[in-house]
Amino acid sequence: MVTMNRNKVVIVGTGQVGSTAAFGIVTHGLCNELVLIDHFASKALGEAHDLDDGSEFQDRHVKVHAGDYADCKDADIVVITVGRKPPANSTRLAELGFTIGLVGDVVDNVMASGFDGVIVMVSNPVDVMAWYAWKRSGLPRTQVLGTGTALDTSRLKTIIGEETGLDPRNVGGFVMGEHGDSQFTAWSTVSLGGKPFARFLADNQDRFASVSTEEIEAKTRMRGNEIVAAKGGTNFGIASTVAGIVQTILWDERRIVPVSTLLDGEYGEHDVFLGVPTELRANGANEIVELDLADDELAKLHRSADIVRSYCEGLL
Amino acid sequence: MVTMNRNKVVIVGTGQVGSTAAFGIVTHGLCNELVLIDHFASKALGEAHDLDDGSEFQDRHVKVHAGDYADCKDADIVVITVGRKPPANSTRLAELGFTIGLVGDVVDNVMASGFDGVIVMVSNPVDVMAWYAWKRSGLPRTQVLGTGTALDTSRLKTIIGEETGLDPRNVGGFVMGEHGDSQFTAWSTVSLGGKPFARFLADNQDRFASVSTEEIEAKTRMRGNEIVAAKGGTNFGIASTVAGIVQTILWDERRIVPVSTLLDGEYGEHDVFLGVPTELRANGANEIVELDLADDELAKLHRSADIVRSYCEGLL
Amino acid sequence: MVTMNRNKVVIVGTGQVGSTAAFGIVTHGLCNELVLIDHFASKALGEAHDLDDGSEFQDRHVKVHAGDYADCKDADIVVITVGRKPPANSTRLAELGFTIGLVGDVVDNVMASGFDGVIVMVSNPVDVMAWYAWKRSGLPRTQVLGTGTALDTSRLKTIIGEETGLDPRNVGGFVMGEHGDSQFTAWSTVSLGGKPFARFLADNQDRFASVSTEEIEAKTRMRGNEIVAAKGGTNFGIASTVAGIVQTILWDERRIVPVSTLLDGEYGEHDVFLGVPTELRANGANEIVELDLADDELAKLHRSADIVRSYCEGLL
Amino acid sequence: MVTMNRNKVVIVGTGQVGSTAAFGIVTHGLCNELVLIDHFASKALGEAHDLDDGSEFQDRHVKVHAGDYADCKDADIVVITVGRKPPANSTRLAELGFTIGLVGDVVDNVMASGFDGVIVMVSNPVDVMAWYAWKRSGLPRTQVLGTGTALDTSRLKTIIGEETGLDPRNVGGFVMGEHGDSQFTAWSTVSLGGKPFARFLADNQDRFASVSTEEIEAKTRMRGNEIVAAKGGTNFGIASTVAGIVQTILWDERRIVPVSTLLDGEYGEHDVFLGVPTELRANGANEIVELDLADDELAKLHRSADIVRSYCEGLL
Repeated sequence: MVTMNRNKVVIVGTGQVGSTAAFGIVTHGLCNELVLIDHFASKALGEAHDLDDGSEFQDRHVKVHAGDYADCKDADIVVITVGRKPPANSTRLAELGFTIGLVGDVVDNVMASGFDGVIVMVSNPVDVMAWYAWKRSGLPRTQVLGTGTALDTSRLKTIIGEETGLDPRNVGGFVMGEHGDSQFTAWSTVSLGGKPFARFLADNQDRFASVSTEEIEAKTRMRGNEIVAAKGGTNFGIASTVAGIVQTILWDERRIVPVSTLLDGEYGEHDVFLGVPTELRANGANEIVELDLADDELAKLHRSADIVRSYCEGLL
Repeated sequence: MVTMNRNKVVIVGTGQVGSTAAFGIVTHGLCNELVLIDHFASKALGEAHDLDDGSEFQDRHVKVHAGDYADCKDADIVVITVGRKPPANSTRLAELGFTIGLVGDVVDNVMASGFDGVIVMVSNPVDVMAWYAWKRSGLPRTQVLGTGTALDTSRLKTIIGEETGLDPRNVGGFVMGEHGDSQFTAWSTVSLGGKPFARFLADNQDRFASVSTEEIEAKTRMRGNEIVAAKGGTNFGIASTVAGIVQTILWDERRIVPVSTLLDGEYGEHDVFLGVPTELRANGANEIVELDLADDELAKLHRSADIVRSYCEGLL
Repeated sequence: MVTMNRNKVVIVGTGQVGSTAAFGIVTHGLCNELVLIDHFASKALGEAHDLDDGSEFQDRHVKVHAGDYADCKDADIVVITVGRKPPANSTRLAELGFTIGLVGDVVDNVMASGFDGVIVMVSNPVDVMAWYAWKRSGLPRTQVLGTGTALDTSRLKTIIGEETGLDPRNVGGFVMGEHGDSQFTAWSTVSLGGKPFARFLADNQDRFASVSTEEIEAKTRMRGNEIVAAKGGTNFGIASTVAGIVQTILWDERRIVPVSTLLDGEYGEHDVFLGVPTELRANGANEIVELDLADDELAKLHRSADIVRSYCEGLL
Repeated sequence: MVTMNRNKVVIVGTGQVGSTAAFGIVTHGLCNELVLIDHFASKALGEAHDLDDGSEFQDRHVKVHAGDYADCKDADIVVITVGRKPPANSTRLAELGFTIGLVGDVVDNVMASGFDGVIVMVSNPVDVMAWYAWKRSGLPRTQVLGTGTALDTSRLKTIIGEETGLDPRNVGGFVMGEHGDSQFTAWSTVSLGGKPFARFLADNQDRFASVSTEEIEAKTRMRGNEIVAAKGGTNFGIASTVAGIVQTILWDERRIVPVSTLLDGEYGEHDVFLGVPTELRANGANEIVELDLADDELAKLHRSADIVRSYCEGLL
C-alpha cells in the first residue's frame, strides 16, 4: 500500500550509544526515516546533522532528523538508550533509581503518542529496564525487549574467532542470563563448524593448545569493562547489535537472538526479563528456545533471575 | 601498496550459471574487476555489456569486461562454469568426456597465463572436475576447490527455514559427499537455535508436527532436479553460492564452507574431492573439519567417495 | 506499527527479466517478502526455490515464494514483466495486441485483489503498456510508472564511463522519450564532473580524442539490440534498473529517475507516457522535471510522443 | 594471485574521528584487515575490540586489530586522524605547530615501514597537513591526499536535499578551496536533476520560495561549527566521507571527489593543496577537473590558496 512511513525508527537518547547506533542504522540503510530525540534538543539536532552530512557516501538515503515524541506515533521501533555516566560518588542503587526515572518518563511519552510498535531497550541494567518498560507501557510482551546478552554472545563468538583464527560467524551458541556479571556461557550449546566447541578444541589440540573455554568465558565477561577502561565507554559493539536487532525485526527475518525478554514459565522462571535465545519477528520477541542446559548452567540462569528480580523489587 | 588489480575475478563460461554468478558478484560489489571469458567471444561481450548497463543502480562500481586467458595472469580467482546441456541421446559417460575436454582446455589456458590464484570449479560433476583441474593444473590443493555441497547445504537450511518458518541462517550443519545423488545430510551435525535439530523438533512437536528429517533430506536432494524440471536449469542458487565463496576468499573471512576439496587422509579417504566442511581463506581451501559422523553417515561418505573415484578413473 | 507485511513486492511474469529482477531485489535485500506470479505456477515455484536456495549467502533474509493475485492486496509494489519472444512471422502490431491482452488481464487481476500500491511496468513497449495499465487500473497517475528511459540513461552513463575510463556515476543527464528507437540523449543536460559533457571532452582533447557524442548516443541506442543479438535477450541491466526503482520507492528516497510517466502538460504534451526525469517517492512518480531542452531535443521529444500515442490509439 | 593482505587499511589516531571512520569502514565491509594505531596503545586496543565485538551482525568479516607502524608496510591506505582538542588558551598558530609535530612523526614512522600506498589525511587544517605529509614523505603527489572539501560538498548536497525535500544524490557540483572559512560553493557547477541549480529554483518558485543559495552556502560553511557547538565535535559526516574515499580508492572506481590535492598549474596555482574535483583511482589522486569557474569563484579559489599557503610557510 502507499505509505510514506515505511520502516520508521526512533532513537531516544543521543549519547555515544544512541548516536552510534543511529550511524550503524544509516550505514546499513535499514529504514526510510530515522528520528532522534534527546532531552537536549540541540544535541539531537547536532547528531542528526552530523549523521546526514555523509549522505553522498551512503548506499541508501535514510532521512535523519531530530524530532519529538509525537514522531513515535507511527514508528515501527523505538530504541531507548537514555542514561548517564554515574557521578563519582554514586551508588548502584542511586543510579538504578536515576535511570528508572528517565526510562519511566520516556516510556510515558512514547506511549502517549499512540505508539504501537516494538521497544528495544538498551539502557542499563537492561534486563531491569526492559521489564520496567514492559510493565509501565502496557504493551504485549512481544513488543518490549532488551538487547540482553546479544552483544555478549557476539563477543563470545568474536573472541573465539580471535583465538582460533576463524570467522566468528562459524560459531553457534549463546551467552545467557543477566547482561551483567552473573551472565554465563551456555557451553553445552556452543558449537564450531558443526562440532561441540570442546570437541573442536580437542580435535585440534596442536593448533589451539592455548585456547581454553574458561579463559574465553572470562574474556567475554570482562570485555565490556576492559573497553570502558580503555576508551571510557563502549559504543561500536552495542551499535552493531542494535542495528542487527532492528534489521531482524524490520525484515521479519525470524532470527534467533538472545535478547532480553519476559520469561513466563520458560526455564522455570516467571516475571523476569533475561537474555535467552528468542525468535525475533516483525512484532518483536516471539518464542523462546528452551535449551537443554546442563545443571550448572541452569543454576546460573536461576541465579541471574534472582539477581535481576531483586533489582526489580519495589520499582513499580 | 599501490596496485590497480586488487580483487580481480575471472569467470570462464558465460552460460546461465556463469553470467548469473557474475551478476551476483557485481550486485554484492565483491571485486574491482570482473572479466568474462567464453568460447564465443561475442557472448561474453554481450553479457559484460548487460551486466555493466545497470551500473548507475549498483552500490559499488565493478569494472566488467570481456577478456581472454591473458587476464588470468594476475587474477585472484578463476571461476570455471563451462559445460553444455546434454543432447537428448547422450549418455552420462559421453557427457563426462565432453566436459573433461572443455575443462582440460580451460585449465591449460588459465595456467599458461601464469595464473597463481584460486580456481573455483562449478562445472559438473563438480567433484570430478575439481579433482581433474587440480591434477592438471599442478596447483597446490588449497588453490583448487569445487562448489561441492555448499549449495546443497544452503538448500538444506533454506528448506528447514521454509518448514519451520525461521531464518535459514539459524541452522547449523552440513550436507556432505558428492554434489549428486549420493550426497547425504549429516544430521548428527545439524542444529537449530543451539539444539540438535531432532531435539528442536521434538521440543516443538505442536508447532512442527508435519516436519520430518527424512522429508527435508529428500527435498534437499531433489530440489535441483525439481528446479530444472520447472525452469530448465538452475542459476540463482548456485550464483549466490559462488558469490559467497568468492567473498569468503577475497575477504579472507575463514568461514567454514562444505566446498569440494581434496581428501588426503581425512575421513579415511585419499585422492578424491568431496564436499566436506573446509576453512576457506585467501589462499583457498585450508583445514578440513573432521566431523564425528555417525556410522551410517560415514558409510555414506565412503560410498560417495567410491562413486566419485569411479568417475575419475581413467581420466588422467 | 506492528505489521508483518512491510515492504512486500510482487513480480508478475517470471521469464528472464522478471526472475533476474527478483534476484537483484533479493541480493540487495530490498524487501521482506517477494512474491512471484506466473501463468505457469510451476515456473514461478521453480524460480522462487532457486532464488531462495542461496539464502545462506545473502546479507538479509528476504522471504521469496510463489503466489497468486491475492498476494497483491497488501503489496507495496507490483512489477509487471509479462511478455513473450515474438514468433518468427509475427508483426509489431500483432505483438502489441498480444502483450496488451496479457497486461490487461494482469492489471485486472491485480486490481481485483484490492491493490493500492505502485505498479512498475517493464513489459514492452513500456510507454504504451504503462499508459494502458494506468487507464485500465484507475489508479492515480503517481501509482503507475514504466521503467522508461531509466535503463537507457544508465547505459549512456556506462558507455561514457567506458569511453572515458571514469566512474559512470560521475555523469549527470538523461536519455528521454520513448524507450525505443525514437529515444534521444538530451545532451544539453549531460554533465561530467561539474562540466557540460561537450566542454569536458573539449578540455581533455588529448585524453579523449576518440570520444564523440554522436557515437556514444548511437551506442546507447543500439546497446539493447546488440546484447539481444549476442545473448538472445537482455536481463541484467533491466534487473538492476528495476531493483534501483524499487529501492527508491520503498525507501522514499526522492531520487530523480527518467521513468515513464504521464505527461499532463509538461513539455507541452498530454495523455502520453514517456521517459522524463521524475521525482520518485514512496507513492511513485511525482513531479516531472521540465528540462530546458534545446529546440532539436524538444522536437525529438514531440516525435517520441507522437509515435507512442500512435501505438496507444484504439487500445482502449 | 594468492595474497593474504588484500585491501589492508591502517588508521592512525583513534579519537572520535578515527574510530568512527573505522566503524564506517567495518560496517561497509570495505577491506580485509583494518589496523588501528594510537599513541596510547590501550586506546587502540579498546577501539579494536569494541569494533570487533559486533562482528556477528556485520555483513562481511573485517579483521580489526590494534597494531604498530610495521603494519603500514603492506597497507594500501593509511588514514591519518591525529590531533587534539585545543586547550582553552591556545592560539591557532600554536595548534598548527602542535599538529604538525604529530603529523610529522606519524609520516616518518609510516614511511620507515616501507609504505608505498596512499595517505588519506584527515587532521586539520587538512590542506596544510596533506601538503606537509606530501613534502615530508617524498611520495608521488597522487599518493597523498586530504579529505579536502569532500565533506563540505556532501554537506552542500545534504542541505539542498533538506531544503528541497529531494535526495541529496540528485545534486551535482562542488564546494572548493580550503576546508575552512575561505571555502566557497562553485555555484556555476551546481546542478539538480539536470538543470543549473538557480534555474531549478526559478522554475519551481512556488515549491521552493524560501530556498536561497546564499542561505545554503552559509549553512554549509557553518554546519561544522554548529555541530561542534551542539555535540562537542563532528565524527559521523567525516567518517562516512573517509569510508567513501577509501571505497573509491580500493575499488579503483575513478569517482571525481573534491579531495585536497596538489595544484601544479591547475587553476593557475602551484605548490598548494586545495579541495578541487579530482579523479580518484587505486593509486590515489589523479587528474584534476579544471572547472570553468566564474570570475568571483576563481578569485575565491586564489584567496583560499593564499590563506593555505600562508599557513604552510616556514613549516618545512
